Amino acid sequence: MRHWHWLIEWDTPSLGHIKAVKRVVYSGRSKYQDIMVIETYEYGVALVLDGKTQSTEADEFIYHEALVHPAMILHGAPRKILILGGGEGATLREALKYGSVGKAVMVDIDEEVIRVSREYMEFMSRGAFEDKRVNLVIGDALDYVFNTSEAFDVIIADLSDPIAEGPSYKLYTREFYAKVNNILSPNGVFVTQATSPTNTPETHAVIYNTVRSVFAKTAYYHIFIPSFEALWGFVIASKTLDPRGLNPKDVDETLARHGVKTRFYDSTAHAHMFSVPRNLREFIEGETRISTFDNPVYMPA
Amino acid sequence: MRHWHWLIEWDTPSLGHIKAVKRVVYSGRSKYQDIMVIETYEYGVALVLDGKTQSTEADEFIYHEALVHPAMILHGAPRKILILGGGEGATLREALKYGSVGKAVMVDIDEEVIRVSREYMEFMSRGAFEDKRVNLVIGDALDYVFNTSEAFDVIIADLSDPIAEGPSYKLYTREFYAKVNNILSPNGVFVTQATSPTNTPETHAVIYNTVRSVFAKTAYYHIFIPSFEALWGFVIASKTLDPRGLNPKDVDETLARHGVKTRFYDSTAHAHMFSVPRNLREFIEGETRISTFDNPVYMPA
Amino acid sequence: MRHWHWLIEWDTPSLGHIKAVKRVVYSGRSKYQDIMVIETYEYGVALVLDGKTQSTEADEFIYHEALVHPAMILHGAPRKILILGGGEGATLREALKYGSVGKAVMVDIDEEVIRVSREYMEFMSRGAFEDKRVNLVIGDALDYVFNTSEAFDVIIADLSDPIAEGPSYKLYTREFYAKVNNILSPNGVFVTQATSPTNTPETHAVIYNTVRSVFAKTAYYHIFIPSFEALWGFVIASKTLDPRGLNPKDVDETLARHGVKTRFYDSTAHAHMFSVPRNLREFIEGETRISTFDNPVYMPA
Amino acid sequence: MRHWHWLIEWDTPSLGHIKAVKRVVYSGRSKYQDIMVIETYEYGVALVLDGKTQSTEADEFIYHEALVHPAMILHGAPRKILILGGGEGATLREALKYGSVGKAVMVDIDEEVIRVSREYMEFMSRGAFEDKRVNLVIGDALDYVFNTSEAFDVIIADLSDPIAEGPSYKLYTREFYAKVNNILSPNGVFVTQATSPTNTPETHAVIYNTVRSVFAKTAYYHIFIPSFEALWGFVIASKTLDPRGLNPKDVDETLARHGVKTRFYDSTAHAHMFSVPRNLREFIEGETRISTFDNPVYMPA
Repeated sequence: MRHWHWLIEWDTPSLGHIKAVKRVVYSGRSKYQDIMVIETYEYGVALVLDGKTQSTEADEFIYHEALVHPAMILHGAPRKILILGGGEGATLREALKYGSVGKAVMVDIDEEVIRVSREYMEFMSRGAFEDKRVNLVIGDALDYVFNTSEAFDVIIADLSDPIAEGPSYKLYTREFYAKVNNILSPNGVFVTQATSPTNTPETHAVIYNTVRSVFAKTAYYHIFIPSFEALWGFVIASKTLDPRGLNPKDVDETLARHGVKTRFYDSTAHAHMFSVPRNLREFIEGETRISTFDNPVYMPA
Repeated sequence: MRHWHWLIEWDTPSLGHIKAVKRVVYSGRSKYQDIMVIETYEYGVALVLDGKTQSTEADEFIYHEALVHPAMILHGAPRKILILGGGEGATLREALKYGSVGKAVMVDIDEEVIRVSREYMEFMSRGAFEDKRVNLVIGDALDYVFNTSEAFDVIIADLSDPIAEGPSYKLYTREFYAKVNNILSPNGVFVTQATSPTNTPETHAVIYNTVRSVFAKTAYYHIFIPSFEALWGFVIASKTLDPRGLNPKDVDETLARHGVKTRFYDSTAHAHMFSVPRNLREFIEGETRISTFDNPVYMPA
Repeated sequence: MRHWHWLIEWDTPSLGHIKAVKRVVYSGRSKYQDIMVIETYEYGVALVLDGKTQSTEADEFIYHEALVHPAMILHGAPRKILILGGGEGATLREALKYGSVGKAVMVDIDEEVIRVSREYMEFMSRGAFEDKRVNLVIGDALDYVFNTSEAFDVIIADLSDPIAEGPSYKLYTREFYAKVNNILSPNGVFVTQATSPTNTPETHAVIYNTVRSVFAKTAYYHIFIPSFEALWGFVIASKTLDPRGLNPKDVDETLARHGVKTRFYDSTAHAHMFSVPRNLREFIEGETRISTFDNPVYMPA
Repeated sequence: MRHWHWLIEWDTPSLGHIKAVKRVVYSGRSKYQDIMVIETYEYGVALVLDGKTQSTEADEFIYHEALVHPAMILHGAPRKILILGGGEGATLREALKYGSVGKAVMVDIDEEVIRVSREYMEFMSRGAFEDKRVNLVIGDALDYVFNTSEAFDVIIADLSDPIAEGPSYKLYTREFYAKVNNILSPNGVFVTQATSPTNTPETHAVIYNTVRSVFAKTAYYHIFIPSFEALWGFVIASKTLDPRGLNPKDVDETLARHGVKTRFYDSTAHAHMFSVPRNLREFIEGETRISTFDNPVYMPA
């Protein structure tokens, strides 16, 4: 029996990924986006927003460990953390693994994604939303960052991509990063998802260059996500701590000290992610544009 | 205008890559396989054998540099090399960049792939087939390896995947690797493409484990190929030289000493490829099966 | 924005229809089949069973009018009718338009299809299930036909296709038709959906030939269903009344006499459907096989 | 082995037909369009222009018989005929079956389509281009019709669809039809393909209404083409002869008189095609727009 029910995720009008749907677990629309939870044949249950796979049961650990741990490890002993976006709750789950964390604020605009994730994908948050250290704010990350008077040790941006008509493009601008810099504690670390360095290399490079225009210490890194069938990129930054100077060996020691268990991330994975091959390195470092409120850089539609 | 002409490359019956065809450059059948040369929108001209993209104008340098250079560098001063498969001529092109090479034997079974590549994709071989050091043999790699009385410093297997009814599965067995070991010079290095560690992780792991059952020194490594939308894996081996012991800094020095220009490969790319994240590392090293003539391990059909 | 959510209905492994899903209205599984109700861009809300479109808001009237009215008109004044299958309720709706009908028995095995249709596609039954003349039986059509002691003026088979492992193939055999013949009143008329004369011409022809082996008077006819992107076939039969002898002009008169309103069906549509072009006519009438319990004829899988 | 090489013919951005390509027979571009000749699994060799299937080995007889014979039969004894378009040569082939025809002018703008059809699809023309009665003109049908001083008994328009930027939209306007009317002999008959009455019902209806605004006697008719998975429509017209008045019985007699052999067309097929069901009839006859040079009606893109 051939499959009849499919998702096609388009990278461009001439390139896509075609994936059979085993079962529709949930399907609906929030104020902000189309939300589907489907069961796939290869990756288990998957969250799909506006037709784009966000996270799957089989490999969400790779994305979320890659996003969260380098920043936490670079800081070394984070106490207050801020998560922007991250509706599934898996970014929160990873951050809460550090016993040093006493307070975690999570700000997400779409309550419906959180509700659907908690109801149909418990494997994402695994109780994180019930943790007493968590303060969940339903609202706009931009508003929160511009209005808070608190300071954070680690700020993690797990936001939707900067698309032209989308709600997120301001969250990838110099103005926003300047404000993030202001609310970081002196040794604070900021990390953001930074789109795919191979699917949208210009967007990735502009995000890096924009972060670099604000923070003293920066690095870009990436990892392959099987269910995206693509590399995914991140940009990490700090006023004081150099992410390029992190000794891979310290990674394993710091993880052990905090008692943090990982499946993907360790010193070798860290070396892998931060060792960017020549062609990508030259492309990213050659970028000169900076995204601003007045002159934002969008992803190709 | 929507695209109407498409290739769908299937990873499984429920997962594939859909890519528009801009132009059919060549389409035909050899004795062994269906051969298409197409122009794509994202990757320029591409060679597609039996519906699988082999190499594209845009990113063939990544695959071919990743396949060839670690083995050449590990040896340090290869004089005689043997290439099994590699019909496009790009593997040969990369190997001939080393001035130390005095003789390069290339054995490929499908003369038609070579002819089509030379006629329609000159960017692949860029004159390599005209190089006086080259001895091109049209024939079966298995026969060649079992019958030659020569010894080689570097042997590079750029063969089609080990599929059940296919012509190549014997070229991934212990018996074959034992014979390869025999025709290596004392400090000789062998490298083989080893399928995708994420699409076909079991096949990749069995190839590694089979190589490991024969050679004293071995390593596995991988790199992301954009046009495959997948990681691609390799296994490297030697009687005497440990690929895991290669200092990344030596990579840049050896490339410079030979005057070899690369676009992707350098010491950082080497570190990236050989630093395999924890989950893949544990999967690959946990494999216990060995592929043999009598009990071969195939790729899932 | 390109569509990402698709159904592909396969006619064969190399031919299909690809249709974007606007919205998933309902998705679930009954004991018998996968049930989806989707909103499409072209055809409004559609019922899809095991990946096959059954009926859509935009054009269900064509299929249901074509199935029901020729048999009702041929009889002229049906009082008791039997519907086998027809879970959506639209076949029932059309049959109840005839004021002469005093009793309508509908037998469908899948209660879930009826429930979902009533809840999410009220436009199908439009109150038919609430009609006091209706006796709804949840059960196997085969059992009902073999065990009833009643006689019917019109029997309408609106059943799933005769596929190899499916629940319906016995409902297209000589034994079944012989039993149907027995429970028809003297001027009774039987009609059955008979698969597509162009997608599965052999199955269509065998159904006709099997009906012809049992009934004295028979005809085959077909109509194009836009949402199927295919012709759909029917076979009509009677002991005494010749469907080929029905004067198209009588069609309009009988419809008017009963006060039956139609959108598609009238004397011209009748002439269209019963005038089968030469190539199809010769193919269908050349068929010699008969489907039986012991030697059933299946649709190609 | 799953198929990897596909054509997707789009009816709309959310609806298409997906068909595997068995073999590329020819692929190229003329001055006017993209030309492919492919072998399919279901329909044999097919001509595909700009991604749209024009004719296939398996069922081109249906389209070409439906286009040509009603007009030839209605006239009864055509001597001079004019074919506009029809590059494959199959329309010409059907028209030449009538012994009464002494001269057939065919005007097609794309010499390359004719060349490719003759070389790779000989089953289309079957020698028609070598017939001494034929005068082949490479040129624009509009120019020919506006400049010829000849009169024709039957004029057959087998042209590409009226798309917005396309070369053909003027060939579906009142001005063009007025000129066609002028070059018809007193009992002359004109017939044109008229797009699909179900895929593009408005275009079909406007073509009919535009023809109706010029000619005294007109009719529309349609037939299902399996490889199009759609109904295809035609409009037929004359100054004096009423196509609606043609007695189906005369069809068989006239065919026999001329010794014309057909596979699809006969009196029953004629009755089928000209008996248009109520819903389509009401839609088509309700159209009030007329396409003109200044205010053309295009197909939806």
